[in-house]
Amino acid sequence: MLDLIECGPDALAAVRALMAEADAGQNADAIVPADTALNAPIPAPRKNVLCVGRNYAEHIAEGDRAQKQNVGVTEYPVFFTKPPTAVVPPGGDILIFPTVSTNIDYEVELAVVIGTAGRNITKADAMAHVFGYTILNDISARDIQRRHGGQYFKGKGLDGSCPIGPWIVTADEIGDPHDLNIGLTVNGEQRQDGTTKDMIFDVPTLIASLSEGMTLEPGDIIATGTPSGVGYAMEPPQFLKNGDRIVCAISGIGTLSNTVRTV
Amino acid sequence: MLDLIECGPDALAAVRALMAEADAGQNADAIVPADTALNAPIPAPRKNVLCVGRNYAEHIAEGDRAQKQNVGVTEYPVFFTKPPTAVVPPGGDILIFPTVSTNIDYEVELAVVIGTAGRNITKADAMAHVFGYTILNDISARDIQRRHGGQYFKGKGLDGSCPIGPWIVTADEIGDPHDLNIGLTVNGEQRQDGTTKDMIFDVPTLIASLSEGMTLEPGDIIATGTPSGVGYAMEPPQFLKNGDRIVCAISGIGTLSNTVRTV
Repeated sequence: MLDLIECGPDALAAVRALMAEADAGQNADAIVPADTALNAPIPAPRKNVLCVGRNYAEHIAEGDRAQKQNVGVTEYPVFFTKPPTAVVPPGGDILIFPTVSTNIDYEVELAVVIGTAGRNITKADAMAHVFGYTILNDISARDIQRRHGGQYFKGKGLDGSCPIGPWIVTADEIGDPHDLNIGLTVNGEQRQDGTTKDMIFDVPTLIASLSEGMTLEPGDIIATGTPSGVGYAMEPPQFLKNGDRIVCAISGIGTLSNTVRTV
Repeated sequence: MLDLIECGPDALAAVRALMAEADAGQNADAIVPADTALNAPIPAPRKNVLCVGRNYAEHIAEGDRAQKQNVGVTEYPVFFTKPPTAVVPPGGDILIFPTVSTNIDYEVELAVVIGTAGRNITKADAMAHVFGYTILNDISARDIQRRHGGQYFKGKGLDGSCPIGPWIVTADEIGDPHDLNIGLTVNGEQRQDGTTKDMIFDVPTLIASLSEGMTLEPGDIIATGTPSGVGYAMEPPQFLKNGDRIVCAISGIGTLSNTVRTV
């Protein structure tokens, strides 16, 4: 049985019903019916969502190819943030503001939820600070991501750019977070299809690095990077369009489904 | 008379006493006695503090010189963030973690506090969204700032790296935020001495750019960049040391004083 945290109205009853369905042996897709009103598991994180860039070799390679550069693997993890105003619940809308950017792209990511506060956490102690795991779609405006002096925040921080959910699975249910299938479809077409085995900086390394001199708090979310298959690296590049249906899936967690809406 | 917002215990009485002193004609230094327990005016911002890099020409020039590069003025503002865990109250300690970084540097900045929510705010409407102004010291670990794939967050996000205060002066009391003296001393030595006239991207431009597709909320803080005179660009570079007394001053607001402490 999955362990769940949910913050919306009437959430506990809805979640218990879903859990009963799951217990009855239905698959992960079946336990996220479109008419439930699940909120994001952490709808208003105290810190901006902590994100990791360039953490899968094939994604680094496709990005370098698309940008005609040869940066490769960085010596230290690449950290940036997404604000709470970007958070979207399961079933909610990914937004496109045509006057701001039409280069909107997806990135399915395993997200770690911190349960126990800490600073200068060692790699050896890191996993004891993890409460659980969820799915996060790091929606990115590719043109804006690079134009603000190279700092990612503006292109990663738009409203509607951070679907999270559908729930948090506790760490004990997941076991090894580095052995999960991770994928994403657009209108049923498989675009990303990887494994968390391929992370360059693993979860303990990310927690140790982030917590060097910075306190991690319960409810902090760390999105651990995306595998290859993003739209901007396709030939020709494919960006999201109004009405597109995006489904993120990670084994052991479930699926996170959202629809793209032009506003 | 200054308008003040303050969130600490017994704060209102303390603030009223300070206001009375100010009304009695004492100078800005005199109204921040060391024994008051002012909290940061916004001790736990909902969004990470929104920061602007490279917004004064002489600071850009000193940074390019120190880094032996020639980047110059960027076409769009450089945005990054500092987490709520970094916030330090007036009189509080700026922290040095010797195992993390000893290249700790200061940056005095005019901080804008948003009062009215908005998205896609025009430059013409921007000033109506400003509640007031305060002082922010964007303490930066220079080595870490550049080593994480060039993304600033990790080097700008350490605990104890974001003194804010001593209070918020409402917009009506400031008038033009682009005509304020802005400076910083280390142990009484003047290191930064500029004017907000020299901002490259002014306050309406920053608000318009940040709010493109991203909702600004009441209490959001925008630190507008620092003038020249930072320690890492001195020859030889000068970084902060245990016991250093840092005083930021902006005309019309007052002073923000903090002491450096090695932990």
